[in-house]
Amino acid sequence: MKEQVQSADGKLGILLPGMGAVATTVIAGVAAVNKGIAQPIGALTQMGNIRLGKRTENRYPLIKEFVPLAELNNVAFGGWDVYEDNVYDAAMKAKVLEPSLLNAIRPELEAIVPMKAVFDKSFIKNLDGQNVKEAATKMELAKEVINDIENFKEANGCNRIVMVWCGSTEKYIETSAVHETLASFEAGLENNDPAISPSMIYAYAALKLGVPFANGAPNLTCDIPALIELAKETGTPIAGKDFKTGQTLMKTILAPGLHARALGVRGWFSTNILGNRDGLVLDDPDNFKTKEVSKLSVLEDILQPDINPELYGDLYHKVRINYYPPHGDNKESWDNIDIFGWLGYSMQIKINFLCRDSILAAPIVLDLALFMDLAKRAEMSGIQEWLSFYFKSPQTAPGLRPEHDIFKQLIKLQNTLRHMMGEDLITHLGLDYYQDLVEAL
Amino acid sequence: MKEQVQSADGKLGILLPGMGAVATTVIAGVAAVNKGIAQPIGALTQMGNIRLGKRTENRYPLIKEFVPLAELNNVAFGGWDVYEDNVYDAAMKAKVLEPSLLNAIRPELEAIVPMKAVFDKSFIKNLDGQNVKEAATKMELAKEVINDIENFKEANGCNRIVMVWCGSTEKYIETSAVHETLASFEAGLENNDPAISPSMIYAYAALKLGVPFANGAPNLTCDIPALIELAKETGTPIAGKDFKTGQTLMKTILAPGLHARALGVRGWFSTNILGNRDGLVLDDPDNFKTKEVSKLSVLEDILQPDINPELYGDLYHKVRINYYPPHGDNKESWDNIDIFGWLGYSMQIKINFLCRDSILAAPIVLDLALFMDLAKRAEMSGIQEWLSFYFKSPQTAPGLRPEHDIFKQLIKLQNTLRHMMGEDLITHLGLDYYQDLVEAL
Amino acid sequence: MKEQVQSADGKLGILLPGMGAVATTVIAGVAAVNKGIAQPIGALTQMGNIRLGKRTENRYPLIKEFVPLAELNNVAFGGWDVYEDNVYDAAMKAKVLEPSLLNAIRPELEAIVPMKAVFDKSFIKNLDGQNVKEAATKMELAKEVINDIENFKEANGCNRIVMVWCGSTEKYIETSAVHETLASFEAGLENNDPAISPSMIYAYAALKLGVPFANGAPNLTCDIPALIELAKETGTPIAGKDFKTGQTLMKTILAPGLHARALGVRGWFSTNILGNRDGLVLDDPDNFKTKEVSKLSVLEDILQPDINPELYGDLYHKVRINYYPPHGDNKESWDNIDIFGWLGYSMQIKINFLCRDSILAAPIVLDLALFMDLAKRAEMSGIQEWLSFYFKSPQTAPGLRPEHDIFKQLIKLQNTLRHMMGEDLITHLGLDYYQDLVEAL
Amino acid sequence: MKEQVQSADGKLGILLPGMGAVATTVIAGVAAVNKGIAQPIGALTQMGNIRLGKRTENRYPLIKEFVPLAELNNVAFGGWDVYEDNVYDAAMKAKVLEPSLLNAIRPELEAIVPMKAVFDKSFIKNLDGQNVKEAATKMELAKEVINDIENFKEANGCNRIVMVWCGSTEKYIETSAVHETLASFEAGLENNDPAISPSMIYAYAALKLGVPFANGAPNLTCDIPALIELAKETGTPIAGKDFKTGQTLMKTILAPGLHARALGVRGWFSTNILGNRDGLVLDDPDNFKTKEVSKLSVLEDILQPDINPELYGDLYHKVRINYYPPHGDNKESWDNIDIFGWLGYSMQIKINFLCRDSILAAPIVLDLALFMDLAKRAEMSGIQEWLSFYFKSPQTAPGLRPEHDIFKQLIKLQNTLRHMMGEDLITHLGLDYYQDLVEAL
Repeated sequence: MKEQVQSADGKLGILLPGMGAVATTVIAGVAAVNKGIAQPIGALTQMGNIRLGKRTENRYPLIKEFVPLAELNNVAFGGWDVYEDNVYDAAMKAKVLEPSLLNAIRPELEAIVPMKAVFDKSFIKNLDGQNVKEAATKMELAKEVINDIENFKEANGCNRIVMVWCGSTEKYIETSAVHETLASFEAGLENNDPAISPSMIYAYAALKLGVPFANGAPNLTCDIPALIELAKETGTPIAGKDFKTGQTLMKTILAPGLHARALGVRGWFSTNILGNRDGLVLDDPDNFKTKEVSKLSVLEDILQPDINPELYGDLYHKVRINYYPPHGDNKESWDNIDIFGWLGYSMQIKINFLCRDSILAAPIVLDLALFMDLAKRAEMSGIQEWLSFYFKSPQTAPGLRPEHDIFKQLIKLQNTLRHMMGEDLITHLGLDYYQDLVEAL
Repeated sequence: MKEQVQSADGKLGILLPGMGAVATTVIAGVAAVNKGIAQPIGALTQMGNIRLGKRTENRYPLIKEFVPLAELNNVAFGGWDVYEDNVYDAAMKAKVLEPSLLNAIRPELEAIVPMKAVFDKSFIKNLDGQNVKEAATKMELAKEVINDIENFKEANGCNRIVMVWCGSTEKYIETSAVHETLASFEAGLENNDPAISPSMIYAYAALKLGVPFANGAPNLTCDIPALIELAKETGTPIAGKDFKTGQTLMKTILAPGLHARALGVRGWFSTNILGNRDGLVLDDPDNFKTKEVSKLSVLEDILQPDINPELYGDLYHKVRINYYPPHGDNKESWDNIDIFGWLGYSMQIKINFLCRDSILAAPIVLDLALFMDLAKRAEMSGIQEWLSFYFKSPQTAPGLRPEHDIFKQLIKLQNTLRHMMGEDLITHLGLDYYQDLVEAL
Repeated sequence: MKEQVQSADGKLGILLPGMGAVATTVIAGVAAVNKGIAQPIGALTQMGNIRLGKRTENRYPLIKEFVPLAELNNVAFGGWDVYEDNVYDAAMKAKVLEPSLLNAIRPELEAIVPMKAVFDKSFIKNLDGQNVKEAATKMELAKEVINDIENFKEANGCNRIVMVWCGSTEKYIETSAVHETLASFEAGLENNDPAISPSMIYAYAALKLGVPFANGAPNLTCDIPALIELAKETGTPIAGKDFKTGQTLMKTILAPGLHARALGVRGWFSTNILGNRDGLVLDDPDNFKTKEVSKLSVLEDILQPDINPELYGDLYHKVRINYYPPHGDNKESWDNIDIFGWLGYSMQIKINFLCRDSILAAPIVLDLALFMDLAKRAEMSGIQEWLSFYFKSPQTAPGLRPEHDIFKQLIKLQNTLRHMMGEDLITHLGLDYYQDLVEAL
Repeated sequence: MKEQVQSADGKLGILLPGMGAVATTVIAGVAAVNKGIAQPIGALTQMGNIRLGKRTENRYPLIKEFVPLAELNNVAFGGWDVYEDNVYDAAMKAKVLEPSLLNAIRPELEAIVPMKAVFDKSFIKNLDGQNVKEAATKMELAKEVINDIENFKEANGCNRIVMVWCGSTEKYIETSAVHETLASFEAGLENNDPAISPSMIYAYAALKLGVPFANGAPNLTCDIPALIELAKETGTPIAGKDFKTGQTLMKTILAPGLHARALGVRGWFSTNILGNRDGLVLDDPDNFKTKEVSKLSVLEDILQPDINPELYGDLYHKVRINYYPPHGDNKESWDNIDIFGWLGYSMQIKINFLCRDSILAAPIVLDLALFMDLAKRAEMSGIQEWLSFYFKSPQTAPGLRPEHDIFKQLIKLQNTLRHMMGEDLITHLGLDYYQDLVEAL
């Protein structure tokens, strides 16, 4: 496969629908890294390494030296938002990064101004904003987005584009007829079908142009048959849904550990307090529903109650999010986990995570942008399950159970990279280190 | 390899040096399970399943139906202790299990009386006890243990024996000349070398007879060249050190998760409160030192500060254990973890684990006994690295870095079982689920 | 005042509307205490002492030896419930106390069978039950309760009765015209005014007979002008509302401490998980509203944002209750408190209380029963503010700010007892211990 | 008493032995407050109010408007330290306050340079420093301090001076013969008695000049008969020991609450992690011993196990401090409290306090300085028990049990102020609000 991966020469454009706390944090971060005043902690594409060969070979190159990725000083950022603040102003309002850091890169940030957004209040009740496209049909909106992308590409001298949805969570809807085929979807765009959400319009525009699209929110977006069909047609990678940060990240770390040891789980109560725009949007029950479905699915897959009914058959799982302005972007989660062990004796685990929402999400946006671009250059089209690692609710082939266990997701990601570059896959068997044993076999 | 594994017919004798809280909990538990009044939660050999083949095949047999293991109703327990209480009395004093449960299996427990122990106060200052062997030399003590094993085997009609050290933590010592070769070690036994600890005497006796030996405490025990040599000579499996329970279990679950995401770690403070005999022994600084070394090594390996100096180069790791009688066996751990993410912004994770020491350790003892017996029947001699999963400080081939990441340990264990039975190893690559993609490659 | 307090001779009847977890725990507890197999921990009337005189006098008698209280072996319990289970069966279902304890007092508990309850589903949606009175008007229901009380008194040979509401929280309502005067209230009873709740009917019946009434739930109940008027008319003590247990107890302990030190509070987030019947009832938003109002009022009074706007003017206070069946009656609360100190620097306090709902409430029921009886014998009629100590939302004279600070409430309670018995009030001035200082003044 | 309090006219000099994190935080804070860029949160003398008269009068003046205190813009700071950094440099190194704040008041801070300190390495092993007085005898050192005070007073135009010990904790010693009388103490100063610590030399110098002295560390310092005698002789107020901040503050808030409700306490485990100079000093067991004794005494007094043996007779109390550099001055405490209630059922409380050591201590230093000056002007000499509120281990009249309950301490402080100004003491009886009741009595 190795020879097939095209090089990362030329500039990569990264377009972000939704330029709030997360998007501005990633943009400001890349600017700061390029200036040498901060490090891109948390991004595998920048800081991560990968083991190759046997343990005794001691080969742990950086991932970015192993696979051909776009370099940070060769990317351009742009995007859309319902507010017209430039990235500097939006970042100051988001209060994620310190003013002293933002001021050091102020000109770069002020130069990035959001394009007018596709917005539909029926999908996000708690937001307002004036920087909004107006058009007669959803198809016209999609065409405007297509124009935006092409203009951005030319204006910034990019030879490749990727798009990562960083917008808020839309209200809960289920797949319906209009989402079933590309034809029905395009008809729906023409006649303003109410089941087509803004995020779908962005995804449609991207895929139409062969631009890889990753979805950071729990909305359906590109996880509908119509857009999977379009992705295949245009040979474009897609991935989603919902960035895996904070509490769910911890859950997909911890649950595999309990499962590994065959410890039972009777109840898992998770609550979150946060005070940013995301918290405000999720204060609306319709939007929270979308998030809740995404968050709840996680344990089911990891613990497999159908296969382990004595251990997980009675699991009571509850997830709550509370809007709490004093914390701003400093999301805090608290989990209580009721487990049981030998002979059924019960124990409890409490986890209190004082995290920062956008700080955890920003490197995911960057990794997804660079890996999606890699996938495109490797001619891997359609659903990129190997990027499940980054999502609360990974999109998979229809009928295929997603993997939520973050460690299986990591091995999947790493073995995909090894496979891409023609290296041996790693199985951790390691019996060959024990010479005498091997001879005995 | 499959045809080589001998069947598990005949009775297995499980001998436990140290019959305190852990040993009595495992013995009582097996009795209760055999009586149908409790379940062996936490034991992979009893409750765990293993995925075979592709995800879409949906093959998840129980491990005990996949590999030939001794059955619970065909094992006999015995052991040694410095106190002469039978298992029922010792379990009542340990206060791990409820009296109502113990009373339901009282006759079975009362029938098991500890043999006189090899004990040396210079290795465990805070314990006393009268049920102790007396002999002129350590070699004679070893021979008495050998006799004990043979007598037990005959008296209980066993055709195979395994030994699992469940005794307290001995004081800290390092490998010295007497431990270097089997010859120097046997000379040391004859002339009472003070660097030969009681646990080494048990291990020597077991290995001499070809009895697999696993070490549940952080003492050196069988992790010395002399006993590795003996294990090879007699074709006997060995494994160690220090059962991975409670706080360290959580640490080897969580640290891989942070490392997976390239999140930095600045500090990790771990404290434990517990009030059982283990807590009392560890209240002595010499014994705590042995434990501390075992507990501290864990992060170093998982986070690899040499390979990731920006992320883990300045990690400050501190571990404390506090004797706190009000909790008894209900160990409680508290961790504070100072992490940092994107651009160096700091976050904190607090974990409060209200666990039960012996409840977590008991299924490990059972699994080790059954898997060590399996290894013996599969003719796998010497160090069993595939059982790293159960240890805080896994014994490996000299010069080989141990794996502490519990998820790599689990894959190692599972792929070893698959390899043993001739099944495909699992790599989680999974590209073949995406038909069109595969065709493209 | 001392000579006015009548003796506690004769039997006291304690009647409890609502015989669920709390009521059965108090009844079983008193039975167990009388049998000498448990102690009435948490009840000031049984375990508490009171300092008298100067610190150097060392006079700390038990409260029950200082004021004349009914003795535990001279009380009789009864009550009403919508379920017809006797107290033994109800206690077994509530799962608060261990079966072994309940079995030791089974006959005493089985002998107590709830009378048919006044129930109105429009006030508690999530409950059902068949053991319910039927009558044409609310006035008739009240008369049936009056009959019940008189019959109970005679059947049990009591010479005094008190009533403590232990039922569930009714839905939120505000005081309206029908509650304004005794006349309008009695008219409302006759014509089935929907604003008259079941708990008001019990209170009316009690007060009509001169039976002291304390209200353990946050419902209005006796906190309406009509019933205050009736209490005065019949010379009857009343007190309420809402037993102060768990999280609110902690809040009224901690908030005074922060206020004492002039530390600012920016946010206070409180969440609760519990799985008992109370949790189920509060899962309905209408009923939770009643509870929420009661719980939120606490901080306002203690911190006095009007007087300390720089410290408490922006306080964001949020309270959540989550129904979580795995915990049963073992309520667990988690608080995050954002405080700030010197120069505005912020700090955080996290409190995790693993409590037991009914275990904390039971001694309050007992104390209230005995102290209300004492008040009656001391001829103290109307609102008993000195019992604020026991309530989340203390009932006070109209227009008088309640005290929520538990330490002021305790001093109020203790100084009331001292005053009643003719002892000096305590001010903690204590300058007289410093002889030379006193002379200097 | 009111007429006796002299006015606060003229400048007050505040001298601080030990100019590390705490002292620099208070000095910088007062400068910032005077500049109008920050608020003196946490200082009762600045932000606190006091209720006067009946609840219905609504009189809550600020304390500083009620009693005559020195004003912040009329104080001068000075002190001694073993390091010669000026206050700006020392504050930058302490990393308690943000550089931006310190830079705004840089000139004022740079102008304050510590005088050479009295230092004796035998009392603080883990510290070093060059800015140290050298003299042949301890008496000569005392005389140099006396000179320093007089020079400071004149140079800064002060008409009154107070001294507050802000230095590190000295190693543990007990009162011995040399501390018994002023005569023996002065002889000890002359012949360099090793039992006279540096802090005693400062206290002696202050008291000799009639300068009030408060002790913020747990060292004996002025809590010895010799210096009490001197304080009486020169009519000087003294107070101590050990600023009540962080974990102990929480403990004296919470323990009274548990005691109020007659809840039993079986165990209380407290651990602290901190990384400042204080943490380094307390890493030495000799110095920790002094702290431990101070911290352990607290519960004994509040819970009174002698009077409540069933509730507190078996209390196991353990306190640990761990040096943990990643946290710097951001001390973090974790408490586990094992309580029991009704019928002995057990519950647990966990408190995690993310505090800031110096931020909590700074306002205490200010309050003590201003209140000690007030005491002096009110002619209150000797031990000031009414300031117990600020201390972990309050100094009291010999033989008098100290009050640790922070709420009793607060009432003592407030009633002392009321008494000083001729206002009614407050008893919280409040029966008079209930007109009808009063008439009945």
